[in-house]
Amino acid sequence: MRENHSDWVTRTELVFPQDANALGTMFGGRIMQMMDVNSAIAAFRFSRSAAVTASSEPIDFRTPIRVGDVIEVRSRVAWAGTSSMIIRNEVYSEDPLSGKRQLCTTGHMNFVAVDADGRPVPVPALLVRDDVERAHLVAAAGVREDILRRRKQERG
Amino acid sequence: MRENHSDWVTRTELVFPQDANALGTMFGGRIMQMMDVNSAIAAFRFSRSAAVTASSEPIDFRTPIRVGDVIEVRSRVAWAGTSSMIIRNEVYSEDPLSGKRQLCTTGHMNFVAVDADGRPVPVPALLVRDDVERAHLVAAAGVREDILRRRKQERG
Amino acid sequence: MRENHSDWVTRTELVFPQDANALGTMFGGRIMQMMDVNSAIAAFRFSRSAAVTASSEPIDFRTPIRVGDVIEVRSRVAWAGTSSMIIRNEVYSEDPLSGKRQLCTTGHMNFVAVDADGRPVPVPALLVRDDVERAHLVAAAGVREDILRRRKQERG
Amino acid sequence: MRENHSDWVTRTELVFPQDANALGTMFGGRIMQMMDVNSAIAAFRFSRSAAVTASSEPIDFRTPIRVGDVIEVRSRVAWAGTSSMIIRNEVYSEDPLSGKRQLCTTGHMNFVAVDADGRPVPVPALLVRDDVERAHLVAAAGVREDILRRRKQERG
Amino acid sequence: MRENHSDWVTRTELVFPQDANALGTMFGGRIMQMMDVNSAIAAFRFSRSAAVTASSEPIDFRTPIRVGDVIEVRSRVAWAGTSSMIIRNEVYSEDPLSGKRQLCTTGHMNFVAVDADGRPVPVPALLVRDDVERAHLVAAAGVREDILRRRKQERG
Amino acid sequence: MRENHSDWVTRTELVFPQDANALGTMFGGRIMQMMDVNSAIAAFRFSRSAAVTASSEPIDFRTPIRVGDVIEVRSRVAWAGTSSMIIRNEVYSEDPLSGKRQLCTTGHMNFVAVDADGRPVPVPALLVRDDVERAHLVAAAGVREDILRRRKQERG
Repeated sequence: MRENHSDWVTRTELVFPQDANALGTMFGGRIMQMMDVNSAIAAFRFSRSAAVTASSEPIDFRTPIRVGDVIEVRSRVAWAGTSSMIIRNEVYSEDPLSGKRQLCTTGHMNFVAVDADGRPVPVPALLVRDDVERAHLVAAAGVREDILRRRKQERG
Repeated sequence: MRENHSDWVTRTELVFPQDANALGTMFGGRIMQMMDVNSAIAAFRFSRSAAVTASSEPIDFRTPIRVGDVIEVRSRVAWAGTSSMIIRNEVYSEDPLSGKRQLCTTGHMNFVAVDADGRPVPVPALLVRDDVERAHLVAAAGVREDILRRRKQERG
Repeated sequence: MRENHSDWVTRTELVFPQDANALGTMFGGRIMQMMDVNSAIAAFRFSRSAAVTASSEPIDFRTPIRVGDVIEVRSRVAWAGTSSMIIRNEVYSEDPLSGKRQLCTTGHMNFVAVDADGRPVPVPALLVRDDVERAHLVAAAGVREDILRRRKQERG
Repeated sequence: MRENHSDWVTRTELVFPQDANALGTMFGGRIMQMMDVNSAIAAFRFSRSAAVTASSEPIDFRTPIRVGDVIEVRSRVAWAGTSSMIIRNEVYSEDPLSGKRQLCTTGHMNFVAVDADGRPVPVPALLVRDDVERAHLVAAAGVREDILRRRKQERG
Repeated sequence: MRENHSDWVTRTELVFPQDANALGTMFGGRIMQMMDVNSAIAAFRFSRSAAVTASSEPIDFRTPIRVGDVIEVRSRVAWAGTSSMIIRNEVYSEDPLSGKRQLCTTGHMNFVAVDADGRPVPVPALLVRDDVERAHLVAAAGVREDILRRRKQERG
Repeated sequence: MRENHSDWVTRTELVFPQDANALGTMFGGRIMQMMDVNSAIAAFRFSRSAAVTASSEPIDFRTPIRVGDVIEVRSRVAWAGTSSMIIRNEVYSEDPLSGKRQLCTTGHMNFVAVDADGRPVPVPALLVRDDVERAHLVAAAGVREDILRRRKQERG
């Protein structure tokens, strides 16, 4: 049986005027788009297959990100099932002049590994290497529970 | 006390190659970005103030949307509190040749009305006009419960 | 013989800094691009075939649209011939804070339904359902006259 | 009294996948957007003031332009009034491998020179230097007639 | 043996907010991107084949270009070998109100003509028509020397 | 006297259709644009000031990058003078299915730290922490020599 670990995929970017509303605050939707692409890369690297977004889990935007800030999105597979992967995303913003840096949000995306026809394919088992990854696994397993409960409610 | 209703904000678009992955399937993140901007317009129109994304609630992507499809995002305020608004989004895709149309996803976004300094401002009470809007209100109130429970867990 | 009606295709958007010139006024060309894509969707839905822009008819920009405004483009097939369709476009702008809304321009685009090789294919007859659609038909038939006159002049 | 001539403003570009529909044909709206920006530059250079699009005149798309083609848009002021300028646009497409080049469309845009508050300001008189520019002037004066007739009809 | 000359390929554009940093100064990288696409068109036209960027040679940015400026990129093949072409780029900026225009940078790009599989194909000999083109040839031949020296160093 | 080290700034991205030419190969200019923005972030973080591109040094594109590949750009300040910083960029491409990863190019960008008026400001001294950073310093010092020689030639 295949096993794989998952390293952070990092994307660092400047926040441009077209990413922000009239108050100069970055759109939540633009952040979600960056989280989705970055999560996809984490899923590709872990599964060595194509993968599509199955669901986006709750994302709280606590801190406004501003035009001119540096934004950093970090993503790694935190939980893996048969063909599902829960990806953990951490978004940091940084004022490039003061260096003040803060965690803006943590959110999970749910991906499914697929073949060229879009049918689910199996993914490796996830190797957890330290306490931080273990904490990520516990949080992602909780997210997995929420997804299963939601599906049950929809059917039920 | 001010009262207001909320009509659908509709955005119809073609799906372009840059919106899609190598399988020709539209990125979930691009759909979320469209939902966020459309939700913002619904929040602006309802509150007659600026508004920012406070959270994105679970979004399930059940049906792949393809390059060349028509995509339609509809958003309306489904629940309103003191300065919070829960916006309901429905995303439809349509094959322009066959006319086959399907609901791809339903998701909620949570916005806060703010002044020019980003401080919360009160919003009108939501007028519910018929059974459909009443069903939207019930679903959105459930989402509101989930948000409060999540915040409690984070603090607790 | 096939018949079809034509409903409005609506696209609502925020005006972003990249849509505007140094005065903060939205570029006419960006508005035309939105009218063209929206007209294409109206043509696809009416004809259930691919369709390409044959001509853009006169468009008067009477009212400046500003960064931060909400713009709404509405398009429907107002006249149909053998394989030609004249699409009526109405563009509204709205100040999201005051709710002040105005019609900025009305313009027509001329599309031709085509097959996969770009050859014209027949379109349904247009069902006109009420007085508003009848007024649209009259205006679009006038546009059709202008197109025929222009072509005649060019042939000389 | 100020006088000025008007040289061609040239923009050469590659046609990208995002500029084209599912048939691989460039969107009319994208071409119009390029004509509008290029016309604006011609108007800026001629008037040495800001300028905004007052109207787009009829544009016939006779020849499909394809992804991978080179597109060239040429624009110059062809007629000048008190604060109005009629800009002539010629759009060429070129297959970069064969070198086959053709005129795809000729269209006019109507601009108004404005100050920082958007109020009309006077423009120089147009110097016509040769027979080609004289032919452009005659064609543009005809377009000007059409604009005046259209405005009269609207008022009348 | 085939021979060909090379005319300037000209791209004129407005500088938009998304092209610039927080100081309102155009990003060097955006200028390089425009130089690369424009160089590619010059290479296509000269060789009548596809062509890919082999290297970018030193580019000095001496003069800041600002949002609202007109930018003009001119490119022509200045030297041709078996399948290599050195393209000269000149970038001008212009304040559209004052008409003040200056050369911002001169830089060379090195392209290779390729077939559909990406394998090098021969290009025509370059016809030099006047003293300006002769000076361009001398400068580009110096760049060619630098490239060969660099490759030699890398091989050891 | 201030001292600072410089960590890698990493940007991971998917290559989209709009980033590539008709052969499906990523444009050199798009890669350079990513290198420039990423270098800017490295310069901001090191100097805690704004910074602008002074020059782009030779960049050799040895390996084509394809649509659907993962691209990773890594940048760090490798040499620092009074207000100049030489930034080293390494660009990797990766086939997400096979995991095959290769270094595509190494290139240097030259930035100047500036204040809000665009005037040069002093930067910290660069702390070099290990043999890899020492090798980067030696390579960047060589680039610095090339820049000085180039400037001398231009003046001379």
